Amino acid sequence: MRFLIDCTLQYEALTETTLILNVEAQHGERQRIVREKLLIPDGVSSETHEVPETRNRYRRMILPVGAHRIRYRAEVETSPATFDVEEVLSLPVSELPFEVMPHLHPSRYCPSDRLGRFAWRQFGDIASGHEKVEAICNWIFENVDYIAGSSDSSTSAHETFTFRAGVCRDFAHLGISFARALGIPARFVSVYASDLKPQDFHAVFEAYLGGRWYIFDATRLCSIDRLIKIAVGRDAADSAFATYYGQLSGPPKSITVRHVDGDREADEDWTVDAVSLSN
Amino acid sequence: MRFLIDCTLQYEALTETTLILNVEAQHGERQRIVREKLLIPDGVSSETHEVPETRNRYRRMILPVGAHRIRYRAEVETSPATFDVEEVLSLPVSELPFEVMPHLHPSRYCPSDRLGRFAWRQFGDIASGHEKVEAICNWIFENVDYIAGSSDSSTSAHETFTFRAGVCRDFAHLGISFARALGIPARFVSVYASDLKPQDFHAVFEAYLGGRWYIFDATRLCSIDRLIKIAVGRDAADSAFATYYGQLSGPPKSITVRHVDGDREADEDWTVDAVSLSN
Amino acid sequence: MRFLIDCTLQYEALTETTLILNVEAQHGERQRIVREKLLIPDGVSSETHEVPETRNRYRRMILPVGAHRIRYRAEVETSPATFDVEEVLSLPVSELPFEVMPHLHPSRYCPSDRLGRFAWRQFGDIASGHEKVEAICNWIFENVDYIAGSSDSSTSAHETFTFRAGVCRDFAHLGISFARALGIPARFVSVYASDLKPQDFHAVFEAYLGGRWYIFDATRLCSIDRLIKIAVGRDAADSAFATYYGQLSGPPKSITVRHVDGDREADEDWTVDAVSLSN
Amino acid sequence: MRFLIDCTLQYEALTETTLILNVEAQHGERQRIVREKLLIPDGVSSETHEVPETRNRYRRMILPVGAHRIRYRAEVETSPATFDVEEVLSLPVSELPFEVMPHLHPSRYCPSDRLGRFAWRQFGDIASGHEKVEAICNWIFENVDYIAGSSDSSTSAHETFTFRAGVCRDFAHLGISFARALGIPARFVSVYASDLKPQDFHAVFEAYLGGRWYIFDATRLCSIDRLIKIAVGRDAADSAFATYYGQLSGPPKSITVRHVDGDREADEDWTVDAVSLSN
Repeated sequence: MRFLIDCTLQYEALTETTLILNVEAQHGERQRIVREKLLIPDGVSSETHEVPETRNRYRRMILPVGAHRIRYRAEVETSPATFDVEEVLSLPVSELPFEVMPHLHPSRYCPSDRLGRFAWRQFGDIASGHEKVEAICNWIFENVDYIAGSSDSSTSAHETFTFRAGVCRDFAHLGISFARALGIPARFVSVYASDLKPQDFHAVFEAYLGGRWYIFDATRLCSIDRLIKIAVGRDAADSAFATYYGQLSGPPKSITVRHVDGDREADEDWTVDAVSLSN
Repeated sequence: MRFLIDCTLQYEALTETTLILNVEAQHGERQRIVREKLLIPDGVSSETHEVPETRNRYRRMILPVGAHRIRYRAEVETSPATFDVEEVLSLPVSELPFEVMPHLHPSRYCPSDRLGRFAWRQFGDIASGHEKVEAICNWIFENVDYIAGSSDSSTSAHETFTFRAGVCRDFAHLGISFARALGIPARFVSVYASDLKPQDFHAVFEAYLGGRWYIFDATRLCSIDRLIKIAVGRDAADSAFATYYGQLSGPPKSITVRHVDGDREADEDWTVDAVSLSN
Repeated sequence: MRFLIDCTLQYEALTETTLILNVEAQHGERQRIVREKLLIPDGVSSETHEVPETRNRYRRMILPVGAHRIRYRAEVETSPATFDVEEVLSLPVSELPFEVMPHLHPSRYCPSDRLGRFAWRQFGDIASGHEKVEAICNWIFENVDYIAGSSDSSTSAHETFTFRAGVCRDFAHLGISFARALGIPARFVSVYASDLKPQDFHAVFEAYLGGRWYIFDATRLCSIDRLIKIAVGRDAADSAFATYYGQLSGPPKSITVRHVDGDREADEDWTVDAVSLSN
Repeated sequence: MRFLIDCTLQYEALTETTLILNVEAQHGERQRIVREKLLIPDGVSSETHEVPETRNRYRRMILPVGAHRIRYRAEVETSPATFDVEEVLSLPVSELPFEVMPHLHPSRYCPSDRLGRFAWRQFGDIASGHEKVEAICNWIFENVDYIAGSSDSSTSAHETFTFRAGVCRDFAHLGISFARALGIPARFVSVYASDLKPQDFHAVFEAYLGGRWYIFDATRLCSIDRLIKIAVGRDAADSAFATYYGQLSGPPKSITVRHVDGDREADEDWTVDAVSLSN
């Protein structure tokens, strides 16, 4: 599938501020950057870093005092791998690659160590695999209300679980927490999403099943085969689209993601397959 | 029903310490103190206070440095009022006596303000009354594990709800939180309980329904018509059997509560009625 | 001192809603209501309750669906008692009236049980009395930033202590927590305040010292002898100016409190005395 | 310096249990394994993994039901690099290697996002570098009590900051949180420590200053140049000496770490230098 991304961020730096952006789409075998351009303010130089293990791409720059406009435009082609959900099974912890094991650990927003008793009681009897993580997503969708403004940047899955309201990042954090508590490695994924209305950055999660990372979205706001991955991390603390050190107001942001092949009908069919954008 | 209570507390005061005890059984129309004796250390004088609204009885004393032994013995006769559960209905908030309304407020261990969304989703459709509070108790019994040592004196219902384990005070705090979130006044009750094995202080809660306080125990450790009330309060912060200001070690405590009328069989029949020890 | 209060609340009830207002000024020997009027919507009847122990005044009414306007106007004369701060000393816990002892207990927003170690280290060496509570207020003023919007209705003193920002209710909750942790009974007070800019409801706290409740305000936004008490309680959970059961939007509120005797200069002198509005 | 390590762990597996051990000392240019042996139960096979970026060494095995004994013995030679503390300065965020930047993010036990306001007020004026992190350690040592049993495996730095008591892992978590809040990358380090009495695993932290990781220990229980590094991670969630999936009781553990060169006097001199075991 082919997508056009157009993302504009506007900032006002009140002091000289170091900004680290993570808005460029990942590239890999299943997500190809056809062309792209990151426009940064005139006279500002930037450094680029791509993390080998995750393919996250960072752009670091020092913004002088004043108003700044940053724009990222890209054409991206994704070729999501799809699988029959019944054939996607968990690996026992004893067979997990060591590299994915840190994604079993609790993190800032995903205190999976506190949620194990519930997770086992609720999901323990379901066959461990794609089906179990889908059951997690269904439970979240049915038990947590999606309410803009109901959480903030300090909200952890512990609070979302009690308060039963949140936004996409909270839904992802709760899904990750349950998966980890059940011995399934899980990580946060920030994405561009053509289905999302109104358009904005979106957050989903991936679970490691049968040797591959699979995408899940407990919000049911998007079809999981029409996402473009930006960054993966343990939770939102690792995957912010922008981090800064200094004083920055904003950003008013405007994001447009358009699906540019396939017809309108296609857009309306949501996949029922297991979907992966990993190799 | 008639009960013999024998409760011994042993303390070691490391500095001069003010101790406030709240171990004496309440007396009222449905709970009569036949005879009782509170033995405090020789040479220690004490002050007594009974709170008019709650009938909680406090004994305050200053313990000098050293080892101390306190013993409370009482014979108490209770005449619990029982009602058909189906006839015990909630009052709407607009008809509640103003005196009970503070028991709708969140408190230290019962942050009912955080648990409303869950409570309404889970219990909202059940007729508001004894049946609804029983549904709360059933939910707690089925979803929270009773595990000695799984909580401590700082554990609130928010944590118990997430962690899904606790002891009697945690079960009571969670029940109170749900009831308040649903507009039903609820309060903590510390009790003596002849059924409890091993014998110890026990904690249950009361909900205000149809003009009266009814007893509930989500632990299912005791029949609610065989309890002797010690103190009521917003939560455990109000109803500690002992509070001290100074340095006190202990207490090793030993508690015996014996049901002294009725036969053994009676002890094994648990009531299915709504039970109240209020007038 | 004489004050004119004019307070308007506007609500939109989306369903029939029970509203409990607590906006009427307390009356007592040191705070006299010269005249007052609470205007409630036409056709709505209301019930009044004054709590004997606290003198809090509640007005309960059922609002039908629709827009409603409530207005409270009053002329109040206060005669604050003032004392030399050095002569206002704490009572030891062994001499406190039993009635005030619940104000030593932790509450929803004042988990004093968690803050004792800090409180004793920071304030333990200061003579226990008005001076100690003033030291608490000074510490809060110097260490916590007053930032509108930095907290919400679920914020407890534990969070304010860590995050070091809040508004008047958070400052009061932190002050209360420290005082209780140090064995000084303390309670929340909602007030009208002529000094406050912009005008709004305000929150301060009282500590029980030498047989009387004294007023403290860690925000330094008002002179504590120019406050009109509305309600006292364990914390904000007990002292909301409005509580409702149903669905209510709003309130846009507008509050004016004017000091109507004394000249402008007087307004600018802040008291350095210990101040009490209790008898 | 040369050390002999002897560490025995005893477990009782109640079900077949996957155990991941992380007790083997790291090896690198400044920490050489002279010889070592990890004895695992007869008939149990194990897999080894060394993480390239961190040099953490994991040993994974499946324990059958029954009692098991694991013993790690090693002779390790460390050559800590020492520097004049005044010459060790922070790098601005704009010059940090991208690889260390995740150590600026908040983590499960180090919610640095909540502690920034305090950290800047308390430590903001101190020159950013070794001196600033030492000031953090001094503050922790002076303000937090080291009390065995005062925290548990769910305690985060937010709670330690409020409660002001903890053990070595809590001291490390709080130090890491402050450093990150101030823009200094910091990570958790589990270590063997010859100075520690009684002998046990120990936890310290490292801060990234001037291109290198430096060791800090806010507990003042050990000289930081007499430590042997086992594992580094974002916090204790990443650096447990043992993680298991299944049911395991224990471990009774016994640890001996002996400094085998240098004389007794040397042991008593604590370094005042900046110390690093990184290359």
